[in-house]
Amino acid sequence: MTRRKISVVIAGGGSTYTPEIVCTLVNSLDSLPLRKIKLYDNDGERQAKLAKACEIIVKEKDPTIEFVATTDPEEAYTDVDVCLAHIRVGQLPMRESDEKIALKHGVVGQETCGPGGMAYGMRSIAGVLENLDYMEKYSPNAWMLNYSNPAAIVAEATRRYRPNSKIINICDMPVGLEDNMASMVNLNDRKKMDVRYFGLNHYGWWTDIRDKEGNDLMPAIKDYMKVNGFVSPMMAANEKEESSWLETSRKSKDILEFDDSLIPNSYHKYYFFPDYVVSHSNPDYTRANEVMDGREHSVFTSCEQIAKNGTTKGSYLEITNHATFIVDLATALMFNTKERMLLIVENNGAISNFSDDAMVEIPCIVGSNGYEPLAMGKIPTFQKGLMEQQVACEKLVVDAWEQHSYKKMWQALIMNRTVPSASVAKELLDDYIEANKDYWPELH
Amino acid sequence: MTRRKISVVIAGGGSTYTPEIVCTLVNSLDSLPLRKIKLYDNDGERQAKLAKACEIIVKEKDPTIEFVATTDPEEAYTDVDVCLAHIRVGQLPMRESDEKIALKHGVVGQETCGPGGMAYGMRSIAGVLENLDYMEKYSPNAWMLNYSNPAAIVAEATRRYRPNSKIINICDMPVGLEDNMASMVNLNDRKKMDVRYFGLNHYGWWTDIRDKEGNDLMPAIKDYMKVNGFVSPMMAANEKEESSWLETSRKSKDILEFDDSLIPNSYHKYYFFPDYVVSHSNPDYTRANEVMDGREHSVFTSCEQIAKNGTTKGSYLEITNHATFIVDLATALMFNTKERMLLIVENNGAISNFSDDAMVEIPCIVGSNGYEPLAMGKIPTFQKGLMEQQVACEKLVVDAWEQHSYKKMWQALIMNRTVPSASVAKELLDDYIEANKDYWPELH
Repeated sequence: MTRRKISVVIAGGGSTYTPEIVCTLVNSLDSLPLRKIKLYDNDGERQAKLAKACEIIVKEKDPTIEFVATTDPEEAYTDVDVCLAHIRVGQLPMRESDEKIALKHGVVGQETCGPGGMAYGMRSIAGVLENLDYMEKYSPNAWMLNYSNPAAIVAEATRRYRPNSKIINICDMPVGLEDNMASMVNLNDRKKMDVRYFGLNHYGWWTDIRDKEGNDLMPAIKDYMKVNGFVSPMMAANEKEESSWLETSRKSKDILEFDDSLIPNSYHKYYFFPDYVVSHSNPDYTRANEVMDGREHSVFTSCEQIAKNGTTKGSYLEITNHATFIVDLATALMFNTKERMLLIVENNGAISNFSDDAMVEIPCIVGSNGYEPLAMGKIPTFQKGLMEQQVACEKLVVDAWEQHSYKKMWQALIMNRTVPSASVAKELLDDYIEANKDYWPELH
Repeated sequence: MTRRKISVVIAGGGSTYTPEIVCTLVNSLDSLPLRKIKLYDNDGERQAKLAKACEIIVKEKDPTIEFVATTDPEEAYTDVDVCLAHIRVGQLPMRESDEKIALKHGVVGQETCGPGGMAYGMRSIAGVLENLDYMEKYSPNAWMLNYSNPAAIVAEATRRYRPNSKIINICDMPVGLEDNMASMVNLNDRKKMDVRYFGLNHYGWWTDIRDKEGNDLMPAIKDYMKVNGFVSPMMAANEKEESSWLETSRKSKDILEFDDSLIPNSYHKYYFFPDYVVSHSNPDYTRANEVMDGREHSVFTSCEQIAKNGTTKGSYLEITNHATFIVDLATALMFNTKERMLLIVENNGAISNFSDDAMVEIPCIVGSNGYEPLAMGKIPTFQKGLMEQQVACEKLVVDAWEQHSYKKMWQALIMNRTVPSASVAKELLDDYIEANKDYWPELH
């Protein structure tokens, strides 16, 4: 049976991840045939730095695919089957602000965890809702696959304000860590494992990992991780791996010392070792600076070169397999593959001892009618306590955004594990308000 | 109708609060007629310092009341209607250790909140269960009114291990704060107010306070507290009030700045302002030292004088009305008064969006068949997040005690709001294990 051809729009076309997504899309035409790829961004100048190269990438693979880069929402969202959304409201300079304000107060400065992620959340909600509304206006039958960060807060907002929209919130982090774990047990593909997992976004745990014969891989993975954390043989062999990422991956071994019943996401280090993280951070040069000077610079340079040469030949664009998960998800929705994937969905009893109205990250079966969550049952006391605190923090951020409430945002900051006291929370809040005055609702 | 006469045993007879309890009992004979008062302690030497004075207090009021002080559980618990339990395993020197070890690591050093309370909990569980078992063996129809600290952890243990026992866990703290609040609105008695309240022990909130005509007193109390915290006119006028207690009471005003929707217990300062608390603590002279040098010294001296003189005349024993709540509770159980009181009970849906198996502090109606909890409905996100974190901490302490698990106790410490990281949690744990080796189960 021939699959019909799909029209895709990438929201946040100016992201440095866009060329990688485009490459993955045109390398996956067997499973997800395409008739149209559109880039959409409200920053046309930034998007233009990537768009020509993306067009060349597409045309070299299949000249029949229509390519569009636009700042016009109507053009972007008309005649679309799937929107891949990875917007970043405030771009990297605001990420830098998020990270540095936290560090100035001796608190973890990170993109999605801690106060930085909360500030980012307050910026992101309106942008994601706006894109969702455009999609529903111009292509009411389309699906939005949203992996805009901070995914947990954005997902809570879409749950509340667009409960009937065809949006699926997803994150590439578990997939990346599953690649690492597969490598630890000599599997060359994470898809050779079946996993059970629960948590909030960036705050989850694997409870079961098996190979396709049903053999339990958890003991071998745990033994490996107790020595190396998430630094897998594959990762260790990659000379281009960034040192800050290696460090985050390695730190997971320390988490297994106090809880080796499950396998934690590597971002837990921000919550369990905030003192270590802060003392190993440079308050004047954060991850945002690394990304701007490294990845952003290299992607823009490569795209400029491709555009100048009119060909990808002789140019280098690093392509990881992270983007495959989003193509898999689109394929599952379009062609009813019933693939099993970790999605961020409303709990509704899937974790039986957790609030129904929490957005949780759990395995789901995806088909053309959407997703069916797998019930994960009851979670242990330690994980429940941590998740309840964090989900309260995330809900309070959305409360603050909704009610324009200074007190709710203060409470949200107090709630976060990385913030040591109500006094520090207030200092952080006042600085974030000042820095985000072009993006946040005015709090009172 | 003449009320039958009751036999009471006070477990923890050597407590400096025992003379006050005895005074309150013999001043309440109209409501709770007594035939027997027994003191029981496993430290006979300490109990002896108070017992003679207590006997004189009893005999002066009513010579027909039999008085016994014993270290023999059979003698103590035989022919008893009610046990008032306020034991302190490890006594005040171990409280000093709890407080100072925490402060040594820059963490809040307090009797029931934070790591100190968790260390104390690990000591207390076996002692409370032992007393409960004695009571059930020798007086199977008796009720135990338990206000041994840390009440939250002890209550979780009795819920798990003695689910069918006639034990009621209760704390005097809300009553004390209600006295303060009554004074703020010119009422001379907390019993002139009807309150709604929910929380964990030492971690609760008033949601509604009304006078007997149904008028809402919350606005006036909040206005007063925004300036003075819990330092009521009554408290401010008391020249003997201790400065550390005044300070704790005053600090509540800072909590109302970020949440004035409810009225918080004054101990919240330990969770919201741990940095302030630590910087205002003397690591070499803590509350345990204050109590030993102040209250303990003065009670022992007074009792010695009463014993020597053979009369209470000319001697001074400070009697507050804190102990009245325990007499009210005994009276309600013995004579079916249906009094409304705050008790620590299994949630079972009373807080509808909180775990059924959590021990929560809520209003109950008390009669001869026990207590009937009032349903408090759904609690706000901020309070739920805080309580979920804390109840997980308390459950993990009991898990650690039950399983002799080093990891569970480490997790419990990580979970607590006052502990900044997993690394600090481990340092605390190792010091507490060393200090508590005569009291804790051996962890592995």
